[in-house]
Amino acid sequence: MHSLDPLFFPASIALIGASSDPERIGGRPLRFLLEGGFGGALYPVNRSGAAEIQGLKAYASLLDVPGPVEHAIIAVPVAGVETALLECAQKGVRVVQVFTAGFAEVDAAGARMQQRLVDICRGAGMRMIGPNSLGTLNPKTRFFATFSTFLNGMQPRAGVIGLATQSGAFGSATYGMATLRGIGLSRVVATGNEADVDVAECIDYLADDPDTRVICAALEACKDGERLRAALRKAADAGKPLIIMKIGQTEIGAAAAATHTGSLAGNDAVYDAVFAECGALRAQSVEDMLDLAHYCAVTGALPHNEAIGIMTGSGGIGILMADNASQLGLALPALSEGAAATLREILPFAVPANPFDTTAQVTSVPDGVARVIEAMVDPHSAYGTVFAYLAHVGLSPQRFAGTEARLIAVRQAHPGRQFVVVMLSDPAVTQRLEDAGVAVFADPTRAVRAVAGAARMARLRRQLHRNAAPVAAAPTPLPQGRALTEHEAKLLLSGAGIPVLPEKVCSTAAEAIEAAHGMGFPVVVKIVSPDIAHKTEIGGVVVNLADADAVGAAVDAVFSRAAAAAPGARIDGVLVAPMVRGGVETILGIHMDPVFGPMVMFGLGGTAVELYKDVAFASAPLDPQRALALVDAVRGATLLRGWRGGPQYDVAALVQALCRLSEFAVAHAGQLTGIDINPFVVQTSGGVCLDALISTRASA
Amino acid sequence: MHSLDPLFFPASIALIGASSDPERIGGRPLRFLLEGGFGGALYPVNRSGAAEIQGLKAYASLLDVPGPVEHAIIAVPVAGVETALLECAQKGVRVVQVFTAGFAEVDAAGARMQQRLVDICRGAGMRMIGPNSLGTLNPKTRFFATFSTFLNGMQPRAGVIGLATQSGAFGSATYGMATLRGIGLSRVVATGNEADVDVAECIDYLADDPDTRVICAALEACKDGERLRAALRKAADAGKPLIIMKIGQTEIGAAAAATHTGSLAGNDAVYDAVFAECGALRAQSVEDMLDLAHYCAVTGALPHNEAIGIMTGSGGIGILMADNASQLGLALPALSEGAAATLREILPFAVPANPFDTTAQVTSVPDGVARVIEAMVDPHSAYGTVFAYLAHVGLSPQRFAGTEARLIAVRQAHPGRQFVVVMLSDPAVTQRLEDAGVAVFADPTRAVRAVAGAARMARLRRQLHRNAAPVAAAPTPLPQGRALTEHEAKLLLSGAGIPVLPEKVCSTAAEAIEAAHGMGFPVVVKIVSPDIAHKTEIGGVVVNLADADAVGAAVDAVFSRAAAAAPGARIDGVLVAPMVRGGVETILGIHMDPVFGPMVMFGLGGTAVELYKDVAFASAPLDPQRALALVDAVRGATLLRGWRGGPQYDVAALVQALCRLSEFAVAHAGQLTGIDINPFVVQTSGGVCLDALISTRASA
Repeated sequence: MHSLDPLFFPASIALIGASSDPERIGGRPLRFLLEGGFGGALYPVNRSGAAEIQGLKAYASLLDVPGPVEHAIIAVPVAGVETALLECAQKGVRVVQVFTAGFAEVDAAGARMQQRLVDICRGAGMRMIGPNSLGTLNPKTRFFATFSTFLNGMQPRAGVIGLATQSGAFGSATYGMATLRGIGLSRVVATGNEADVDVAECIDYLADDPDTRVICAALEACKDGERLRAALRKAADAGKPLIIMKIGQTEIGAAAAATHTGSLAGNDAVYDAVFAECGALRAQSVEDMLDLAHYCAVTGALPHNEAIGIMTGSGGIGILMADNASQLGLALPALSEGAAATLREILPFAVPANPFDTTAQVTSVPDGVARVIEAMVDPHSAYGTVFAYLAHVGLSPQRFAGTEARLIAVRQAHPGRQFVVVMLSDPAVTQRLEDAGVAVFADPTRAVRAVAGAARMARLRRQLHRNAAPVAAAPTPLPQGRALTEHEAKLLLSGAGIPVLPEKVCSTAAEAIEAAHGMGFPVVVKIVSPDIAHKTEIGGVVVNLADADAVGAAVDAVFSRAAAAAPGARIDGVLVAPMVRGGVETILGIHMDPVFGPMVMFGLGGTAVELYKDVAFASAPLDPQRALALVDAVRGATLLRGWRGGPQYDVAALVQALCRLSEFAVAHAGQLTGIDINPFVVQTSGGVCLDALISTRASA
Repeated sequence: MHSLDPLFFPASIALIGASSDPERIGGRPLRFLLEGGFGGALYPVNRSGAAEIQGLKAYASLLDVPGPVEHAIIAVPVAGVETALLECAQKGVRVVQVFTAGFAEVDAAGARMQQRLVDICRGAGMRMIGPNSLGTLNPKTRFFATFSTFLNGMQPRAGVIGLATQSGAFGSATYGMATLRGIGLSRVVATGNEADVDVAECIDYLADDPDTRVICAALEACKDGERLRAALRKAADAGKPLIIMKIGQTEIGAAAAATHTGSLAGNDAVYDAVFAECGALRAQSVEDMLDLAHYCAVTGALPHNEAIGIMTGSGGIGILMADNASQLGLALPALSEGAAATLREILPFAVPANPFDTTAQVTSVPDGVARVIEAMVDPHSAYGTVFAYLAHVGLSPQRFAGTEARLIAVRQAHPGRQFVVVMLSDPAVTQRLEDAGVAVFADPTRAVRAVAGAARMARLRRQLHRNAAPVAAAPTPLPQGRALTEHEAKLLLSGAGIPVLPEKVCSTAAEAIEAAHGMGFPVVVKIVSPDIAHKTEIGGVVVNLADADAVGAAVDAVFSRAAAAAPGARIDGVLVAPMVRGGVETILGIHMDPVFGPMVMFGLGGTAVELYKDVAFASAPLDPQRALALVDAVRGATLLRGWRGGPQYDVAALVQALCRLSEFAVAHAGQLTGIDINPFVVQTSGGVCLDALISTRASA
């Protein structure tokens, strides 16, 4: 049994701070539980000592309650919460919901009070929702343990969509919109301050919950990245579509932002990467989340591919849907030969294309619509999903009855396909079609957007990889709390298996000239100093040195520029390296995310990274397949693959470097704040790190 | 009187091809007109000679009708249309709607038939909608001259939104969705094949129409760009918001695509530019179009700026709305000092920020919501629009009554601001608020999207510029039907006022060396041939030539490479030019759009243009202000303005070059197919064209 079961299915519940006034926060939950007809034991508790509250026998203390209490709601003023919680612990309560606000969300003193609540719960093996939670709903059993005033007017209906949200108001907005649209819900929980139970754990619960087939979740912040990842993967493994919203921008720690990679990570890029890796689809609005959840609930599965077929009685709407679909990454492959032949028989004057415009002719063919749709899912058809744009026929239920029955039959005959009807429709018609698994939308674009979301989720889940087990290699102790010099960084990366140039730190011009002779001209000379992170900006790099004289002059120049620009800087010497020509400059980086740990970044070099934010992130460690996907997530990666007649670069070498970097990051996660390899030059054969920055924590 | 008045307000109407069967295409319009209670003279015409059709006296020919006929509908088979139209001409009909399909949309023979219809109308001074049109609605007078089966079930209600659409099905989808949402319409017209009247002319009509306050339009293709531009500007001048959809991709003519600019123009970039220049907002879905149109209809004006204030009882929803708003280009400036002070008085524990989270405390303050909103629009507040997120209070009309009255009062007291309530709401509550000018949305993101659209349209209209009068300069006759050589192109552009390098065409190495001495080393050598458009790809360009020997070798090399790569090519010599270093490479281009004429393109050089499609278009000619806006529409333009500590480049020189190029294009519009200046190097002082391609038409 899951420790959260008593949250939704308690045999007994106490409401501490129960009020006789059904409008007050302590009165509403009692009223909603009574109105819902809660079947278990229900104990109002109020220290006023009232004998009866809202018609029920009341108790001055939870400890006066005669029987066991599985679930308690605390709705007393903030000063009384701790005492109430201690009584819950003493009583053996299994799950507590704390509705009271005024804890960590307010100030440090509140945070300390909140921590004491956590300690009490941990000590007693009791689970806690909140504090500052809006409550829990289980529409199936009409269990409404909330003070949301939405319940004043209407009751959410039972369905298969579970909702776990941090913000209570976000939750009631979502189930409010769902209820007005007639969309049912299995469970709703608002986790509030998440002192104990967080959204991730609720997702974990919903992944197991047999009444929940689709999961919606909304986060403002995540404290435990691993728990969230595990919960999202569990939902994917359970075959339950999961749509998630993440709202608000978080700050990137100052240390992390010391690297270029860190400044590019932002909040959204990392969450986007983690959600996608774990097979969850991110929504940007409540309505989009509900559209997609409802679509998944109706169809019962995700589409098996991204290929769609469109039949339409209107060329214009067909083109609009095709435009929308290709913008959203869906494909519109041509009709199969068989389908085209059948369609030519059914509608001789229509052009057998995709979108298939039936023209008005379809109305004069008996069962025309259903026959067209059936033709489009012949055994050789590629379409995972078929759309039918039927204008407003659904508003005339009697005229539509025949088509409706045939559509349902087609749907039943083809359980592996998805069918979407776009039309204006009587609610009863919509209900019958959706009960049979045929999705109905009024707006063509929203229909396409929902299918595109479902198809994307399906693709993410096909690609779902577990992160490899943490890399076994023992970490090297790194210097603490500073940016390593380029040379130090390259030695470490080279040791980790990332190619670097045969280069040498020299103290004098003569030494540099000798080194240059050894490696062959032309060479590059760069200043080496732990105090100078941005060498180029002070003139500390001179490239393309063709002979000994040039090297000598360059060494003198960079020493004197460094002395002028950074008078107190420690100077370790100059680095002499062979000059690399050609290849594509890329950036590889590690962002040490405070929530999700080491994240690998890949981007093109030059201005593209910052100007166009053309970078992608992935959780470390990477295997070659995921590293390749990371590369391909960047638009500029086209440059690596014979762009405009150019050469094919060695993507395999790039992929290997990304994997090695990711493993190094995992092994040294405790010591790092970030890594930039900028540039990593991808050549037609091989690739090489030309510059690197490793930044470490003050203490491991 | 507008020549389309009889389309919507006829005193008399004949239906040619009228049917007694109210389900047939010839029967439905008659039935809908009768059901609507059309007050004028209504004449069914059917050559069968039936005495009566649907209860009305019928005529075998239009010419038998006793009185005058202003408006005729033709719904006869395709073979009979021409005869029917001739009768209309003879009868003195003012406007004809041809519902019959089977003309230009089918084949060339159909197109010829369609042209004959146009000729008949022109000869008779008669206007024609269609052929292949779905009809016209005027809900105000309950005039439903259509065969759309949507009218079987419901009748669109009267309102202030006018709809002009090419596709009839698109139109009925739109007014169908509007009607189901309770949104009223002033006029609806579906122009079909647009043999005579097109969407642009209908927009022109609606811009004058006193019952229409907001215009929606949907295009599949536009044949007359100038008419569309003029109509869009007229709507803007009339202060009527205009939301437009353009669906489907058109082909770019092969000639235009001979330039880089042409291949980047595509369909959408040019339409986007034209719509924006004319103050129209482009929507991507029917629902978005309706949301924005309805928002404009409710508020009665566009917001005066892009600054929004948000009050919310839920931190989570406030953050979501702020996220959405900043993604969509709205600004969330801080509260004014006065507003902050007042809010501190009203709600001492809430933090006076924007979004302003009232916390649950607001419910315990009398008139809390209205007072907060009133405080947010104090005289010093920047907010053109204030949002209030009120959860689901609108579902409890009685509880909400006080707030509702105060909201309406606040709205009336501040006519220069816009007010948007986001909540779940009883339809009657929504109606009362919207009647008073307060917009109501259920989904927070849709609310923000509508306001962002309205604010963007307002900005476009503030920036609205007329295109300057066509440039007076007499055009130079250009060589016909080919790509000019680089040297020819540069001479022309130089003559037009665009800086080029002092460069010289030389026939021999000796001549080239002499030229190089004259301009100073280093120099560049390029092959000159009217048959070699892509010089770099055949090795026909050698840069950075430091001395006479290098120049001599380079001349020999490019001659022999050209001979090897393009054996039959005519060789005019080599171009010697000074080597330019530094600066930012940009691309300036002219796309000769078949519909909209010369369009100027601007983009960054390098890979950004193609990889990230970071280009923008504007109609030629440009004045400096519009040229600057074109530059700033490109993300990469940041590189010109001291990016990451780099220099400020001479944007004024770039702007001047764009203006001169645009004027050259207008003057030579009849001769050009396209121009690429690639690169135009913008320097810290000045700018210069380094390479240019001008492609001309076969005959002017």
